[in-house]
Amino acid sequence: MSAEGDALDEVTPELVRFVETALADGRTEEIRNLLKELSAVGQASVIEQVSESERDALIALIKRDLDPEVLTELDEDVRDDVLDQLDSKDIAAAARELETDDAASLLEDLSAEERLEVLAELPAEDRADIEKALAYPEDSAGRLMQRSLVKVPQTWSVGQVIDYCREAGDLPDDVYDLFVIDRSGRLRGSVPLGRMLRTKRPVPILDIVDPDIPSVPVTADQAEVAHLFRDQNLVSCPVVDGKGRLVGVIMVDDVVDVIDEEAEEDLLKMGGVGIDDMHANTVRTVRRRGLWLALNLLTAVIASAVIGQFEGAIEKIVALAVLMPIVASMGGNAGTQTVTVAVRALAMGELTPANALRFIGKEFAVGGLNGIIFALVMGGAVLLWYQDWRLGAVIGAAMVCNLVAAALAGTLIPIGLQKFGVDPAVSSTVFLTTVTDVIGFLAFLGLATLFLI
Amino acid sequence: MSAEGDALDEVTPELVRFVETALADGRTEEIRNLLKELSAVGQASVIEQVSESERDALIALIKRDLDPEVLTELDEDVRDDVLDQLDSKDIAAAARELETDDAASLLEDLSAEERLEVLAELPAEDRADIEKALAYPEDSAGRLMQRSLVKVPQTWSVGQVIDYCREAGDLPDDVYDLFVIDRSGRLRGSVPLGRMLRTKRPVPILDIVDPDIPSVPVTADQAEVAHLFRDQNLVSCPVVDGKGRLVGVIMVDDVVDVIDEEAEEDLLKMGGVGIDDMHANTVRTVRRRGLWLALNLLTAVIASAVIGQFEGAIEKIVALAVLMPIVASMGGNAGTQTVTVAVRALAMGELTPANALRFIGKEFAVGGLNGIIFALVMGGAVLLWYQDWRLGAVIGAAMVCNLVAAALAGTLIPIGLQKFGVDPAVSSTVFLTTVTDVIGFLAFLGLATLFLI
Repeated sequence: MSAEGDALDEVTPELVRFVETALADGRTEEIRNLLKELSAVGQASVIEQVSESERDALIALIKRDLDPEVLTELDEDVRDDVLDQLDSKDIAAAARELETDDAASLLEDLSAEERLEVLAELPAEDRADIEKALAYPEDSAGRLMQRSLVKVPQTWSVGQVIDYCREAGDLPDDVYDLFVIDRSGRLRGSVPLGRMLRTKRPVPILDIVDPDIPSVPVTADQAEVAHLFRDQNLVSCPVVDGKGRLVGVIMVDDVVDVIDEEAEEDLLKMGGVGIDDMHANTVRTVRRRGLWLALNLLTAVIASAVIGQFEGAIEKIVALAVLMPIVASMGGNAGTQTVTVAVRALAMGELTPANALRFIGKEFAVGGLNGIIFALVMGGAVLLWYQDWRLGAVIGAAMVCNLVAAALAGTLIPIGLQKFGVDPAVSSTVFLTTVTDVIGFLAFLGLATLFLI
Repeated sequence: MSAEGDALDEVTPELVRFVETALADGRTEEIRNLLKELSAVGQASVIEQVSESERDALIALIKRDLDPEVLTELDEDVRDDVLDQLDSKDIAAAARELETDDAASLLEDLSAEERLEVLAELPAEDRADIEKALAYPEDSAGRLMQRSLVKVPQTWSVGQVIDYCREAGDLPDDVYDLFVIDRSGRLRGSVPLGRMLRTKRPVPILDIVDPDIPSVPVTADQAEVAHLFRDQNLVSCPVVDGKGRLVGVIMVDDVVDVIDEEAEEDLLKMGGVGIDDMHANTVRTVRRRGLWLALNLLTAVIASAVIGQFEGAIEKIVALAVLMPIVASMGGNAGTQTVTVAVRALAMGELTPANALRFIGKEFAVGGLNGIIFALVMGGAVLLWYQDWRLGAVIGAAMVCNLVAAALAGTLIPIGLQKFGVDPAVSSTVFLTTVTDVIGFLAFLGLATLFLI
């Protein structure tokens, strides 16, 4: 058994530095031996962490005996780099050793031309399986599932099933349930291996089958599949076609990847960055992030056009220019809180038409209460700072307006976007800050113009 | 077998509305029957979605025959409300039916006094198990693990193990691996059930054991455990004490909850809201979010004090007040992009001392390049807008300064916070916006004072 420390922290910074130095010195044999001792995840982590210039040399070095699992563990941007260096024979050899779902996602990244080349190198059976998987929509259950599973006829006894498993001898280590099917291949239920093991041989398999197991249609979205696994604490879940026939099984480890992916996507989208940003090169990153910044520039220009309408007021009372960013910034922060909760709740299915009105009502109340609190704080501070109670009253009133606007915008924008089929994680914050900037400047400078000038 | 639609979408908005109406009409029997047909997750979802006033009535109605699993599925804030309505006898009855890890986390939420009352109601063995679990630090492997597992001596044959499982008859359905131990209880390895099933009876169990399985120490942090499961695609993982003795096993479904929790925490923290915000009541939410807003107010006041230093410049050129928020806002957005990538990469262990310098270098380059691009865009726009090339040059130069500052602050702040043991997800953005606001206003107004006045 490996020491616990090893398993938890295989790839240390020292190890990465060692690989880099060894690469520079051309100590190729040492690197090969060192990588051989790492798990696929460990090897992938080393490839990701070395700098781009050294990465090419590293791949050239190890591509002869590359563990195909490493390819499935690599970050997508890095994997593209690696695949560029492999020819179609190498990629086909890797695809042959992988599960169908992993092989399909590997081939998906290739150009159409390259994909055909790789498929041509594969044995007919593997090719057919991968083509079938690629035919399902991306992110569907059909893509996620694997086709290798153990199905037994409903007429067998426990003893027959055990003998079949022993004789077939190809029961994979990661099978946890057997599936029972009827004569037309329709799923009748499943039997956990543990239950098989503790049941006497003559018992009919139908006596110990779980008929009430959840299954997913082959076209279900992977996010729905992840919800189901999460809600029902599943380890594996059968996949059925339109006629209820068993066509594959999804394992929990693939679902863990989906859950990670979805959580990462939400976080990165809310921050205005694309997926895999960390490993994209500088030019690609500049281009991806630049688009988002351009959109935000538009927002900022709109806000500044609002300020432009009040140049006269600012010329008379320059304190307005000093204080106006405070109102806008508080609205932006309060609105971000609301948007974050709404986006997460929408993604997790916790915010539904059944409780949307209550949710909006609560956010409205929270925005109003925090608005009043910070109106008093900021109004008081301005009174002390500028010795002008009217200026304090104006900033307080503007604060309440903007925090209430932030609450409404922070709930209505993501709910509305979702309703129109737009991903609320991507675009909510741009719309939100447009609202909080415009309302913030408008309320503060507008009220100042009305009451102070 | 249930229809697929049912499993994926058990609780519809209509169902929640129906429960609310039935509660108002006092049709108690209907509600009880309806809830009985839902899974534990479904029941929890209904309890979460009905409004707070109706929630109490609903719990009073169903507490007699409450499925204890419902308690483990409830959101923490809602669970507190439910536990308030149960007396210690009810809670003890629920705890007795739950796995040790779930029972421990249930009792943890109670006051010390209540906890003692509930423990007193439990049979001695259950009490001892739960007390042992509660002795481990929160969020440790010891808390996450369950104690019920199947361990067999290394001297047995496959046949002996199978007979033992049949006779003991208490092999749970969710056991996927058997563990082999030596005479002092130390873990020797594991055997997947599938492999047991396909092996002939006389084979010694030691011949088919996996000796190289990962295990975690009982004190390991749950985030590390989640990493391990993810990296090695595990379904279960044995937990060992300081002497290498097997004390429990962690199952993947508990880890899925941890992964969800950690991802949710990062997202919510970055957005400036606490955990479980969605189901907290208004007052609690106002208090929690108000703290964050107060911190942000401080940031905004600091930025506005910087502007205050340049009142003279703004009085002379009021266009400065109109344009200054653009520079600050672009810095804030670019910095948020960088912080988001850095926080996620730190959480996933992808940003390490081995590649930190390279990461900072890349962000610096991205910030510089986007700075130059948006300097040209904004400088050109100002030239057209105000017909003043010097003002355009000043805003361009300020833009470059602030986007480079945002890149450096966006990397150095989270890395620095992590180094000092502070969670970068919580506090990075406040520090970041302080930097981008101050540098943004300072660079723009300062350069304007130097070159335009």
